[in-house]
Amino acid sequence: MTGYFSKRLSGLEPYVPGEQPRDRKFIKLNTNESPYPPAPGTAEAVAAAASSLSLYPDPDMRDLKITAARVYGVAPENVILTNGSDETLSFAFVAFCDDSTGAVFPDVSYGFYPVFATVHSVAYRTVPLEDDLSLDPQKYHGAKGTVFIANPNAPTGIAISRKDVEGILLTNPDNVVVIDEAYVDFGGESCLPLIEKYRNLLVVQTFSKSRSLAGARFGLGFACPELIADLEAVRNSENPYNVNRMTEAAARVALLDGKYFRENCRKIAQTRDETVPRLKSLGFECTESLANFIFARHPDFSGEYIYRYLRERGILVRHFRGARTDGWNRISVGLPEDMDALVAALAGMTEEKR
Amino acid sequence: MTGYFSKRLSGLEPYVPGEQPRDRKFIKLNTNESPYPPAPGTAEAVAAAASSLSLYPDPDMRDLKITAARVYGVAPENVILTNGSDETLSFAFVAFCDDSTGAVFPDVSYGFYPVFATVHSVAYRTVPLEDDLSLDPQKYHGAKGTVFIANPNAPTGIAISRKDVEGILLTNPDNVVVIDEAYVDFGGESCLPLIEKYRNLLVVQTFSKSRSLAGARFGLGFACPELIADLEAVRNSENPYNVNRMTEAAARVALLDGKYFRENCRKIAQTRDETVPRLKSLGFECTESLANFIFARHPDFSGEYIYRYLRERGILVRHFRGARTDGWNRISVGLPEDMDALVAALAGMTEEKR
Repeated sequence: MTGYFSKRLSGLEPYVPGEQPRDRKFIKLNTNESPYPPAPGTAEAVAAAASSLSLYPDPDMRDLKITAARVYGVAPENVILTNGSDETLSFAFVAFCDDSTGAVFPDVSYGFYPVFATVHSVAYRTVPLEDDLSLDPQKYHGAKGTVFIANPNAPTGIAISRKDVEGILLTNPDNVVVIDEAYVDFGGESCLPLIEKYRNLLVVQTFSKSRSLAGARFGLGFACPELIADLEAVRNSENPYNVNRMTEAAARVALLDGKYFRENCRKIAQTRDETVPRLKSLGFECTESLANFIFARHPDFSGEYIYRYLRERGILVRHFRGARTDGWNRISVGLPEDMDALVAALAGMTEEKR
Repeated sequence: MTGYFSKRLSGLEPYVPGEQPRDRKFIKLNTNESPYPPAPGTAEAVAAAASSLSLYPDPDMRDLKITAARVYGVAPENVILTNGSDETLSFAFVAFCDDSTGAVFPDVSYGFYPVFATVHSVAYRTVPLEDDLSLDPQKYHGAKGTVFIANPNAPTGIAISRKDVEGILLTNPDNVVVIDEAYVDFGGESCLPLIEKYRNLLVVQTFSKSRSLAGARFGLGFACPELIADLEAVRNSENPYNVNRMTEAAARVALLDGKYFRENCRKIAQTRDETVPRLKSLGFECTESLANFIFARHPDFSGEYIYRYLRERGILVRHFRGARTDGWNRISVGLPEDMDALVAALAGMTEEKR
């Protein structure tokens, strides 16, 4: 950092995204992307939008908000649209945290939460997951801070119930509770129906996983109109044209093709549920993941070893260093043939040991 | 604002973008967009990018950085790429301001500077423009804060010379000087050649005006590698996938078609220079604009009146309330026929008066 760099950010450790390899062809199971292409018609819609690229997007994104609201069964005033769900999360840290209200989140969760807190000069407190990596909702009752919970959690894939979230909402009337549902479409229970009842709930979703649009960057936040207005004030103070015209077009196609979306989610959940027992039969321990990834470890191999072993064989998974995650790898659910290759490689690894 | 809203942001007044009318067809001269379409091949490139939208973009944007660096005659390490130049500016407020280093900018300039300062809890000081709305560079010598200067300035269109900027850089060794060149391609003198010499210079450009990509959201920052590394730390802490795959594709086409870009800039400058005398002959006073807009007032009509008169006749221009800008309107340079319609309408207005 130069001498010009903000003193506020002295502890900043930027988020490290998963590798996007450019040199060789990998089976890419490291960033939880969808193995299925965007909905049919996306390329055409995007090309059509390109003809009006000389004009700014509608900063209110009125049309897209109306479409999204209809699809999700809420009002347009319940919705904020952002450049990826990371942006909704970032806006939430700015809008709902300050010098007297810090952030509270699990010790093992989305690695971006502590980064957002630091870059926005927000103090935070982490709550340890249980020994089995599950999350005890009781530990967030009366949290005294803005709560951020990924549900299902990442990188564990373990979910809590809507009822559990209600308990957190009820015991935090003076704080906003952010439920990050990046992975909810693969089997979790969404808290979207709760936004009418709880004025302190923000639900965040993304099109990067279940809607096959990681490369388009599109996220949504859902809440009561007043919380959304707070977030819109921040959006209009940071980047009022945050969603570009092409992303708008791609998101619209994705929103309107519910059948394609649901079918992909079903296939991915099925592939996950077929892969877990195969890994277990090789001696792996797997969490109860309801997400589009598997979190696995093996008693005979370190997490780092498994990661490297697979990488050398052309399969990329994600290993997170850290006391509680060191033994584990997060493996995105790909196509059935990707998982066949994964299981074959890991079978080879366990064979060698014998 | 709800009771949950950050106390830090109590004074926040979000930026108000120019109208993007959706109800009727206007001659749109209010947001400084290009009247010319994106470079040939943009739609095809964007459609091709759509096929890989299920994958995240390269968070380092290595390929596009290399292309941009080559086109601008710098090294990739001198470049940061962002979701519009607003994002580069926002990152600069976060990276280079803190509790002891505020921001300094003109009282009449891009309306977003005070908003960025407020949303990032940065104190700021404004420096009045001269009576003729020109900027006296001397007033920024030893500014004791991070300097933000739009050059040419908006909404005046008046530019300062590279030599003037050097004076500011030399007298602010302990502070970063941000030169916002959103409008430089229409006749201003870019400070890009100075980044090798001054470690405290950040030059910001956008593809929203001269490259016809307002709807794609693409901006660039140029500086010495160390300042860029500071900004990258902030980018990787806010939104490492800030530029999506389609924008990447559109920006690449724009970068590589220098001929189309230069020809459009030339045409727009020519239209501007032909329109100004016509407005003057109707009694208007115009600043010496080197941008893709004209800043004009008339001794016999209020700025608000002119704005409304034109709006009723299907022509949108931008009127900024405020003591120093109230009499003026900012008129984007459109197609020659757009300016014919503008001049005809204003001729009608001055006729009526007689």
